[in-house]
Amino acid sequence: MPSYKAPVADVSFLLTDVFGIEQYGSLPGFSDLSGEMIDAIAGEAAKLCEEQLQPINLSGDREGCVRHADASVTTPKGFKPAFRNYVEGGWLSLSANPDYGGQGLPYTLAAVVNEFASSANMSFAMYPGLTAGAIAAIDVHGSEAIKATYLPKMIAGTWTGTMNLTEPHCGTDLGLIRTRAKPNADGSFAITGTKIFISAGEQDLTENIIHLVLARVDGAPEGVKGISLFVVPKFHVNPDGTPGARNGVACGSIEHKMGIHANATCVMNFDGATGYLIGEMNRGLNAMFVMMNEARLGVAIQGLAQSEVAYQNAAAYAKDRLQGRALTGTKAPDKAADPIIVHPDVRRTLLTIRAFNEGARALVLWNALKSDVAHRGGDAAAREMADEQLGLMTPVLKGFLTDRGFDNCVMAQQMFGGHGFIEEWGMSQFVRDARIAMIYEGANGIQALDLVGRKLPRNGGKALMAYFGEVGGLIKDASVDETLKPFAAALQTGVGHLQQASMWLMQNGMGNPDNAGAASVDYMHLFGLVALGQMWLMQARVAAERLKAGPDAAMSTKLTLARFYFERMLPETALRLARMQAGAATVMALPAEAF
Amino acid sequence: MPSYKAPVADVSFLLTDVFGIEQYGSLPGFSDLSGEMIDAIAGEAAKLCEEQLQPINLSGDREGCVRHADASVTTPKGFKPAFRNYVEGGWLSLSANPDYGGQGLPYTLAAVVNEFASSANMSFAMYPGLTAGAIAAIDVHGSEAIKATYLPKMIAGTWTGTMNLTEPHCGTDLGLIRTRAKPNADGSFAITGTKIFISAGEQDLTENIIHLVLARVDGAPEGVKGISLFVVPKFHVNPDGTPGARNGVACGSIEHKMGIHANATCVMNFDGATGYLIGEMNRGLNAMFVMMNEARLGVAIQGLAQSEVAYQNAAAYAKDRLQGRALTGTKAPDKAADPIIVHPDVRRTLLTIRAFNEGARALVLWNALKSDVAHRGGDAAAREMADEQLGLMTPVLKGFLTDRGFDNCVMAQQMFGGHGFIEEWGMSQFVRDARIAMIYEGANGIQALDLVGRKLPRNGGKALMAYFGEVGGLIKDASVDETLKPFAAALQTGVGHLQQASMWLMQNGMGNPDNAGAASVDYMHLFGLVALGQMWLMQARVAAERLKAGPDAAMSTKLTLARFYFERMLPETALRLARMQAGAATVMALPAEAF
Repeated sequence: MPSYKAPVADVSFLLTDVFGIEQYGSLPGFSDLSGEMIDAIAGEAAKLCEEQLQPINLSGDREGCVRHADASVTTPKGFKPAFRNYVEGGWLSLSANPDYGGQGLPYTLAAVVNEFASSANMSFAMYPGLTAGAIAAIDVHGSEAIKATYLPKMIAGTWTGTMNLTEPHCGTDLGLIRTRAKPNADGSFAITGTKIFISAGEQDLTENIIHLVLARVDGAPEGVKGISLFVVPKFHVNPDGTPGARNGVACGSIEHKMGIHANATCVMNFDGATGYLIGEMNRGLNAMFVMMNEARLGVAIQGLAQSEVAYQNAAAYAKDRLQGRALTGTKAPDKAADPIIVHPDVRRTLLTIRAFNEGARALVLWNALKSDVAHRGGDAAAREMADEQLGLMTPVLKGFLTDRGFDNCVMAQQMFGGHGFIEEWGMSQFVRDARIAMIYEGANGIQALDLVGRKLPRNGGKALMAYFGEVGGLIKDASVDETLKPFAAALQTGVGHLQQASMWLMQNGMGNPDNAGAASVDYMHLFGLVALGQMWLMQARVAAERLKAGPDAAMSTKLTLARFYFERMLPETALRLARMQAGAATVMALPAEAF
Repeated sequence: MPSYKAPVADVSFLLTDVFGIEQYGSLPGFSDLSGEMIDAIAGEAAKLCEEQLQPINLSGDREGCVRHADASVTTPKGFKPAFRNYVEGGWLSLSANPDYGGQGLPYTLAAVVNEFASSANMSFAMYPGLTAGAIAAIDVHGSEAIKATYLPKMIAGTWTGTMNLTEPHCGTDLGLIRTRAKPNADGSFAITGTKIFISAGEQDLTENIIHLVLARVDGAPEGVKGISLFVVPKFHVNPDGTPGARNGVACGSIEHKMGIHANATCVMNFDGATGYLIGEMNRGLNAMFVMMNEARLGVAIQGLAQSEVAYQNAAAYAKDRLQGRALTGTKAPDKAADPIIVHPDVRRTLLTIRAFNEGARALVLWNALKSDVAHRGGDAAAREMADEQLGLMTPVLKGFLTDRGFDNCVMAQQMFGGHGFIEEWGMSQFVRDARIAMIYEGANGIQALDLVGRKLPRNGGKALMAYFGEVGGLIKDASVDETLKPFAAALQTGVGHLQQASMWLMQNGMGNPDNAGAASVDYMHLFGLVALGQMWLMQARVAAERLKAGPDAAMSTKLTLARFYFERMLPETALRLARMQAGAATVMALPAEAF
């Protein structure tokens, strides 16, 4: 039976010591946020996740969701009371708009809670997670009437929300959407069509479900410029705000998936369902895309979260499992064998995962802070710059963290030998659950294209230039410190590769977009490697400083992890650059039929 | 619904054109083996695998094996007739000893059939696969009486075989085995203990099951030097050779696994079961290890096999799925969108898998031929050298091919977007089935240790020196050809890294074994990358030669794949070397409790 302990101390170290969250005190929601308050909030969230969400993770996977003949869906045992407790603990309303009952705390704190909840129970965390996304979409784009109707109930967790984008013939290419919206006389629309892969599309946790649906209004232009966004409640809402008659939307079936079994992934059938336009007509994709950075950051967090819980269980197993003897001689003579943690390759594996986790957590929180600045900052220029930087890093976060998060789960599973393959041990579930994060919310190949095709060139490469300035300054500062010098030098090499790679893209990708396409995934990983290096240098700087005051086991560990990262992980940048520079000629050489 | 087409033409190209199998004509079993005969045999095997094994793969995964209250086990629908047809087609007896009813054909051909069967249905292929292993063990170590009793029935497929090594507290470290063997008055033994993870431990395919069991004879020395090997039939064998009364061995339960659901992975309880010693007492591990190279090569083949079938399905989907438009402008104006094969990143992914597959298949067959020479060659020196070389390459084959095979299945699954996560599409099964190959028959970390700790230093590094001679000669020959020159240069760089790495291990691993341990997995992958480079240069040489005679689409594709391999895949050797050279200091720096 796997276990989980939320990394409260690491969050505290990052937000307080590394990122100096008190500097953000002028932003709404940040004013009262002392280190103690962060610890208290994270500690409470940890408790809920460890004690209530984690214990129903394995059973939820085994049990799955069940659809009944009347199209209702039952979630696994324990999910209903856990959802109640999650909501009553204030975790869903944490960063939501106070005008509608939210607590208005930073998005950054919501990201922390999201990591803990996703580690404890990814399937569960998706129910409030998707609701938070829908809340944000309605908050930004909804009319006052719609906001007043839906937001209080959703923020209170009385109703949940979903996102309905994909159709059988279109996922990435939403311009192909066929779901139709026919205007009704009263200004509403009748929505008809089939959506697939709708996470949390049906459940028994709440009295109503609010679907956000992309559809094409009759007569709208073809392609992406003819798509509008609608809110479609499962039950019509009575004038007094209570759920009324059933609307024309129902779950047609639940998908049989590789993982996240406890989240109902539904085929949703809309049969003349009443929907209400959100935002401008034919600008539905734009309305969805406003939420994209946070939604993608949320998926990146899932990659980190599965990697973290997989690491914890692998480390515990490695310290417990007795098998063989250390290469350098017996370490536990009183036992039949040494614990496998004595083996260098076991440690190498664990350190690879851990150095990722603590770097990735920093990168998530660093960018969550940028999201808070982008949405709450007082200074328009600072807001815009934060938004640009977050936009640049979003595909890196989503693609890199979920690719590596999955790989790490596989590595952690490997530590268990044959037991890793047996479902009762729980390691298989981490792998299977983590797998979806590489796919949904824009498959990782699409993230890479978004990075090289849209984010890099945007505004003349302003965000990238700002990034190089930021990391360059860090390297310069660190280079004068004896402890940090080798780390700074390693990071400088990585940054050099990223600069060469960016230059190569500019010189070779404009004239022949296939060069950019063939290089895109390697560039995304190269960027991610450098970004994690930046996060490790920032952490090492604080650790080195604190160690000057005397011994500190946690800070010594941080320095060792930083050293491991710079010695063994960051050097991958050279390989990524070399692959990019191979160009598209060979990649595109074969006729399609040769595949 | 996934599909599969066995790569008969590629096998034919490799065995006939690249490896010149006619040169082996003097070996027993090879004499009549013309190109036409290979095509005919491979073609027949392909037919069975495509038409009978593949169609019950997905259903077998869904259905799984069921254990009943009487400890009997039912395999999924269709497995029984398919097994009959497999046996009657002569596929189980293909390379078995003619003295006991085998056909005596090369092991190399059995490896070909094993690839096809594993691609079509990995769970199924394990039933005959484990039987073949047990047959080989009994053939080498059994007394005449035991061989006469068991081999004819097993080779005829009337009975199957299993391997019983692992116990709950010991997998890698077999010295910890607790299963006891108590001598009976008649020279047999009473075996008592519990074995876990026993593939094909119980089934309804055959009238008897012959278990090979590692156990400790009462009073035997502690550790690995006190383990003996026994044959334990499920049903006692009557004097007339028919199955008699039930023996004291039964399936206690079936494991719930991540994959290979259609193969019954059993907990086997031995309760005073009658067993017969095979080979010398207390030398049971040696008896098992004689079979190890072929058993591990068999698992390596599973890695290749899943990668191959995953590739085929991903390539078909990429040519079929319409989504978005090519970066360089619309390619299918008559359709709503272009097939996703137009995208460089889709091609890059497919080529990465394909270049692995065709390189790995070559490496498997190249080493299968070495196995045939080692076991059948007339010249003792040649036999010994082949055995040494096969021994050196065995951990590379097992570790590298299964690590990459799994990664490739994940990449192929990714091509399907959300559909890849849905079980009905079959891509998830390839990933889940491929996962076990990294674990069993010695987890890949153990393979890497075997490589650096045992195989490299053996006989003063003779096998490695021979390897460098072999690949050096190839590079020298190829360097004079204009087409091959850049490939040869790239391979020379990779070989240089492997030489540096080997030197580094000698200089740093002897004094401090932790350096060898920390470097082992990177060295294994570095070796695998170079070995695949060698295979690609050998194939490119033939392709370049044949293209001189005129256009040949298949040979042009081979050259493109070779180019892709040398441009984008082989450069990873530099990263692997750099990681190794980081040494063990940081890896071993933390106290165990810091993990």
